[in-house]
Amino acid sequence: MNHFTSVKDVKDLNAAVEQALTFKKDPSQPHRHAGKRVGLIFFNPSLRTRLSSIVAAQNLGAEAIVLDVNKDGWALEYGQGAKMDGDKAEHIKEAAAVMGAYFDLLAIRTFPSLVSREEDYSEVVLNSFIEFAGVPIVSLESATGHPLQAFADLITIKEQWLHQRKPKVVLSWAPHVKALPQAVPNSFAQWMNAAELDLTITHPRGYELSPEFAGKAQVTYDQKEAFQSADFVYVKNWSSFQDYGQVLSKDENWRITLDHLKNTNQAKVMHCLPVRRGLVIDDEVLDSPNAIHIQQAENRVYAAQTVINTLL
Amino acid sequence: MNHFTSVKDVKDLNAAVEQALTFKKDPSQPHRHAGKRVGLIFFNPSLRTRLSSIVAAQNLGAEAIVLDVNKDGWALEYGQGAKMDGDKAEHIKEAAAVMGAYFDLLAIRTFPSLVSREEDYSEVVLNSFIEFAGVPIVSLESATGHPLQAFADLITIKEQWLHQRKPKVVLSWAPHVKALPQAVPNSFAQWMNAAELDLTITHPRGYELSPEFAGKAQVTYDQKEAFQSADFVYVKNWSSFQDYGQVLSKDENWRITLDHLKNTNQAKVMHCLPVRRGLVIDDEVLDSPNAIHIQQAENRVYAAQTVINTLL
Amino acid sequence: MNHFTSVKDVKDLNAAVEQALTFKKDPSQPHRHAGKRVGLIFFNPSLRTRLSSIVAAQNLGAEAIVLDVNKDGWALEYGQGAKMDGDKAEHIKEAAAVMGAYFDLLAIRTFPSLVSREEDYSEVVLNSFIEFAGVPIVSLESATGHPLQAFADLITIKEQWLHQRKPKVVLSWAPHVKALPQAVPNSFAQWMNAAELDLTITHPRGYELSPEFAGKAQVTYDQKEAFQSADFVYVKNWSSFQDYGQVLSKDENWRITLDHLKNTNQAKVMHCLPVRRGLVIDDEVLDSPNAIHIQQAENRVYAAQTVINTLL
Repeated sequence: MNHFTSVKDVKDLNAAVEQALTFKKDPSQPHRHAGKRVGLIFFNPSLRTRLSSIVAAQNLGAEAIVLDVNKDGWALEYGQGAKMDGDKAEHIKEAAAVMGAYFDLLAIRTFPSLVSREEDYSEVVLNSFIEFAGVPIVSLESATGHPLQAFADLITIKEQWLHQRKPKVVLSWAPHVKALPQAVPNSFAQWMNAAELDLTITHPRGYELSPEFAGKAQVTYDQKEAFQSADFVYVKNWSSFQDYGQVLSKDENWRITLDHLKNTNQAKVMHCLPVRRGLVIDDEVLDSPNAIHIQQAENRVYAAQTVINTLL
Repeated sequence: MNHFTSVKDVKDLNAAVEQALTFKKDPSQPHRHAGKRVGLIFFNPSLRTRLSSIVAAQNLGAEAIVLDVNKDGWALEYGQGAKMDGDKAEHIKEAAAVMGAYFDLLAIRTFPSLVSREEDYSEVVLNSFIEFAGVPIVSLESATGHPLQAFADLITIKEQWLHQRKPKVVLSWAPHVKALPQAVPNSFAQWMNAAELDLTITHPRGYELSPEFAGKAQVTYDQKEAFQSADFVYVKNWSSFQDYGQVLSKDENWRITLDHLKNTNQAKVMHCLPVRRGLVIDDEVLDSPNAIHIQQAENRVYAAQTVINTLL
Repeated sequence: MNHFTSVKDVKDLNAAVEQALTFKKDPSQPHRHAGKRVGLIFFNPSLRTRLSSIVAAQNLGAEAIVLDVNKDGWALEYGQGAKMDGDKAEHIKEAAAVMGAYFDLLAIRTFPSLVSREEDYSEVVLNSFIEFAGVPIVSLESATGHPLQAFADLITIKEQWLHQRKPKVVLSWAPHVKALPQAVPNSFAQWMNAAELDLTITHPRGYELSPEFAGKAQVTYDQKEAFQSADFVYVKNWSSFQDYGQVLSKDENWRITLDHLKNTNQAKVMHCLPVRRGLVIDDEVLDSPNAIHIQQAENRVYAAQTVINTLL
């Protein structure tokens, strides 16, 4: 593993999950990477990712240093050959090279604009760091993917599912007040596919994910059909990929209620957080024993710890 | 001690002060809680509390991680059953549970609105963390109390007062340009009462503190009478509890000058900081050897260290 | 060394450079200052300085704690005898004394206003910390100087220059869109002079630096003449010292292109960063092997490490 930006960077997915669960049993291993330094670079706000990444690095004995680029530093220029006479004070070429000189590993969070699909899906920020930093780069959620979340989700499913047969996993779109990135559903689909679980994606028309990520998953516009015998229901809003960044529906029927779960196989309900209660999922569902969203959040630590450990 | 939000959480006040003074003699004890993790969660700005809490945790070998919720994260919803379709992205139920999963102890700073007394005195933020985080909670100043400050104040008085008789302690209201919380005077009164010192509170009419905190203290509107033979004068502005959050007086006669101290017993002058010079207390007083406000600030470290040590 | 605010605080410049290069070979020496605590106090944004100072302190085993005064704390009052009834909540007397009580060393970043030369050059923030904190103070760039940058620059030149004869060093003004401080050119000139290198300063008329810093350097308005046989070209914009804080020229002919370097002795090109590409220096220059700006940034760690080590 040279970088960690997608499931493709993981050679052996089962081994990675095993490693994470081993860390979960015995998290504090400060002699592993003492003296190493991890830079956590945030272009956007974060709670879980920020905290779980710090904890993960510290568990390995490494120093975690957070930089909020836009607040602590200044706006960066990414354009090749740009004449920098506007509001951008520093080019990514220098910023990435300097940070690469100070750290053994850089982890980057950067959101999409949701304006230009081409620009977002070219992952210019993440790829610029890979090009210019000279050290391993970890995605802490980028324009199009959130692989540490998906890794934590897979760990959680593996912890929960102790049967022989493959679980039926459903990724269900839910309504929201804002236009949200496709990063979480993209990565979730990609990782479920890579883990060869039985994945169904359900959403209103027009919310099809990029085929690059949806892959071989079943897709249906009928949420009820999708939920039939589901073992895991992963709930998430996203904006349209086709009609890029647009909110095409706020249909409240897609909000997850106790009623939605009736025909499932007592499905566990998952969400990456933050979740808007009463809008995306009902209180009754989130407060029930079926909800495993806190466990997912906790597993973010061990996902990050596994990735940082491998890259250092 | 399960949590630390008031003097009532301290079983043996004398023993706690002794422990703090022992830490002060030998602060760095990194093997006590190595591998433990303390989350410092700020909803409001802080200088002394932020720094002294970090230092206290590090002195014990624990990792201290600061999160500025409003800047680094997002606005939280506290309402039970709320439909979250506004500007609140996450419910305290999830935020507290996730932070509780990442930390061994959470310390919270949250100011009052000074709009609704009922809401402020219900301490919804602090109590929500206690309800949902699943780990010990420490108040770093809440809507109605600042127990770490009062603990540091008590340590300072115990250090300064070497006589047999009980010292006469006066809490004196002072003018200010802004409406300030009652948290500091509330806790100071509560702790002085619990320590069974001789406490007098003096302020203009209408500034009576909540009886829950003022307790058995003497109250007088005559500052001069109050200062007679005082050994310690604690100066602080607060807004009205009765006429909630209002500024009823800006009377400059209440500002502490050298003249005010003439009839005291060479009283030591205390303030929790930040203090506005020339408005609350005169330069001549703050620059005199009677002022012990820097010592109070220094003792914040050992107050916090004692509390964190006990809870971990 | 009691404080570090200028080259005058360094007794033996050669020994300091040697120490820095020794640290560069073996940076991680965590037993040197374990248990010591370094406060990094930022009044202004920072990327390199923030990160390199944290890394430097951690390399020495010390804890580095960052405080963004304006964001995390509140506005400070510096006026002696001021009646604080405006927007300043705390006086530097208290703020510095309290921080001095919490830390073994304080490092301060504070920019000039570029409005009043007298005020900026009196260095009120830095000098107030020296007066009231009671611990060693390090400048992380102040109103008039950036000694850690100049120290790193000297280290870089010493690393690059292996010949017997003294190198010809040119400090060249360059155009910019904003009015920038004189701190970097001031310190660079002062350190080159102290190191007894052959320094030429070139800029348009009206951009003369304060004689206190320019010292014995050659000054010319003819950039081409200055660059003749130069071994190092240090490029930097600054605003006028004479016509204080004003932008007198945006002449693009002063931008460094490959053509500018033709008559130099294959000069190495230096910049303190952040650098605006295409405005201050051309891409072709910054992407060429002659550019050593990343090395300068890397050496910031060892400059800071040397200073912190000496002061602790």
